[in-house]
Amino acid sequence: MAETETLTLDTIAALSRAVLEAAGASPAQAAPLAAAIARAEADGIPSHGLMYLPVYAEHLGCGKVAGQAVPVLDRPRPGVVRVDAATGFAHAAIAAGRPLLIEVARENGIACLAVRNSYNCGVLGHHAEALAEAGLAALCFTNAPASIAPVGGLTPVVGTNPVALALPDGAGGARLVIDQSASVVAKSEVVKRAKAGKAIPEGWALDAAGRPTTDPAEGLKGTMVPAGGPKGVGAGLIVESFAALLAGATLGIDAAPFSGTSGGPPRTGQFLIAVDPGATAGPGFGAALDRLAAAVEAQDGARLPGARRQANRARAAVDGVIVDAATLARIRALPGGA
Amino acid sequence: MAETETLTLDTIAALSRAVLEAAGASPAQAAPLAAAIARAEADGIPSHGLMYLPVYAEHLGCGKVAGQAVPVLDRPRPGVVRVDAATGFAHAAIAAGRPLLIEVARENGIACLAVRNSYNCGVLGHHAEALAEAGLAALCFTNAPASIAPVGGLTPVVGTNPVALALPDGAGGARLVIDQSASVVAKSEVVKRAKAGKAIPEGWALDAAGRPTTDPAEGLKGTMVPAGGPKGVGAGLIVESFAALLAGATLGIDAAPFSGTSGGPPRTGQFLIAVDPGATAGPGFGAALDRLAAAVEAQDGARLPGARRQANRARAAVDGVIVDAATLARIRALPGGA
Repeated sequence: MAETETLTLDTIAALSRAVLEAAGASPAQAAPLAAAIARAEADGIPSHGLMYLPVYAEHLGCGKVAGQAVPVLDRPRPGVVRVDAATGFAHAAIAAGRPLLIEVARENGIACLAVRNSYNCGVLGHHAEALAEAGLAALCFTNAPASIAPVGGLTPVVGTNPVALALPDGAGGARLVIDQSASVVAKSEVVKRAKAGKAIPEGWALDAAGRPTTDPAEGLKGTMVPAGGPKGVGAGLIVESFAALLAGATLGIDAAPFSGTSGGPPRTGQFLIAVDPGATAGPGFGAALDRLAAAVEAQDGARLPGARRQANRARAAVDGVIVDAATLARIRALPGGA
Repeated sequence: MAETETLTLDTIAALSRAVLEAAGASPAQAAPLAAAIARAEADGIPSHGLMYLPVYAEHLGCGKVAGQAVPVLDRPRPGVVRVDAATGFAHAAIAAGRPLLIEVARENGIACLAVRNSYNCGVLGHHAEALAEAGLAALCFTNAPASIAPVGGLTPVVGTNPVALALPDGAGGARLVIDQSASVVAKSEVVKRAKAGKAIPEGWALDAAGRPTTDPAEGLKGTMVPAGGPKGVGAGLIVESFAALLAGATLGIDAAPFSGTSGGPPRTGQFLIAVDPGATAGPGFGAALDRLAAAVEAQDGARLPGARRQANRARAAVDGVIVDAATLARIRALPGGA
């Protein structure tokens, strides 16, 4: 039996959608998430690809995410689009708000989309890229259940809270895509090692007493190490300020976990800022971006952030994606997966 | 002879203003910078206080900053305020744009101020705080001459590029003020050690071959270490994207140095985003901020970012500030300093 199988991106999206709908998701909830799963596979981020699909299905079943949720949109001020995700997937909520966000950002030069009561949003960079593909610069924030302690403390106050940036390339695509968490590594890496019974390198997590640990189980009882020490905590707090405080979403200290089946919906948030470079920078934006990119790319061994994902994606569009057979077997055993 | 002297904040501002004006700054250029110098002293950041005043005076003399510059303001879209600093101080340019930024942010829910062709802006957090004092959440960026190399490279592509956040406390003040550079330490710390002939700790800077160094002179020929490795580079690129690319300002790789007298004006930029929490989050914002702050403050040894500066400031308003006598002697020898 082969240990991998090669699938096209369309097949991945169709399979994902069928499983999500069979688990109770409406087409409007399932479609954007299925597309995101295919894009994660294309980009070489399998942790947010098909590997996650059984969890999404389980979470639809236990009520951690509401499969029939209908996002509610309003525009309280000219530059602000808000979406109440109604405990549905963040992808559907963002998809509901994005067209108006794009329109308003072009009109006003800057606009934001504040999403509350949502489930986690997968690869944050993808939501930034979608705005860059519309010609806008995007800065995006999303929060997560608290796992990072403040400097000098032991109790988590913010999650691994990523930030993402994407700039438009002037040709309908994104360039300089940055997507980074506030911690040294994503928490999912520690979960993965815990499940596999493998040690983690020192410097990833601290135990409950704040001591460095190489035992992932002890790390999961403790806290994640912030990248750059106090600056990682600061980065996490900046993200929390936007994705929770300014989005009107649940703080990481109060959010139900993203993993497992207990605790109900996490009700976390996302905050997307979109800026029209033509309004703020004028016509020199593209040439200046080229110049900055060239300064990085001219150096042997250096790479523009996002370049690897984009290279993977270009290859996947032609060759499809190699998927782990065990993952596929698990999915095919689910309703809708056959 | 006493080695220190205690001055009131008003005295510090008046002395700074007199020296700046005697060196060629117009009242509109001098006043906001003089206030910023007093605030830096109050906050316990002497590197941006009176210690910097002789440099400002020197830079007015050599043309690195234009003392008679008149900032030019426009509003190309409803949500965008732009200021061409005309190679004057960033403080005057930001002061020129701030009232309209505040008005537009309240109206639209979100707005930005993009400043180009400016000199460095001192303590970035102060510009964020000024918006928080008007009831707005602020996220601010400023760029600097390139000093951080990309991962895998040796040549700098971004500066130590700080980011600052400030949230309104609901009572005309700021809370949760974060102000952090993309590097492990500010470059001025390395310059200070180089002047004093002291070694720097390993982990602050790399030499021109990319090797860790404890010699500040070698570090200044090389690059600054990014905080959190690749994430510090990412943070620097996010800041560069706003403060240079989106502000239409000069890239760090092209900017003339902030120090010394050669190269002319740096023409760097600032980008300030202001959000009205009442528009995006609704009435729960203040209580949620209290709850997040309490989660930090309840932990022995942990502290909310910005708390130390604010405590210093409260003390300085009553007791004044202790200033180094040698610094004062240098200032008093300058025109306007007597």
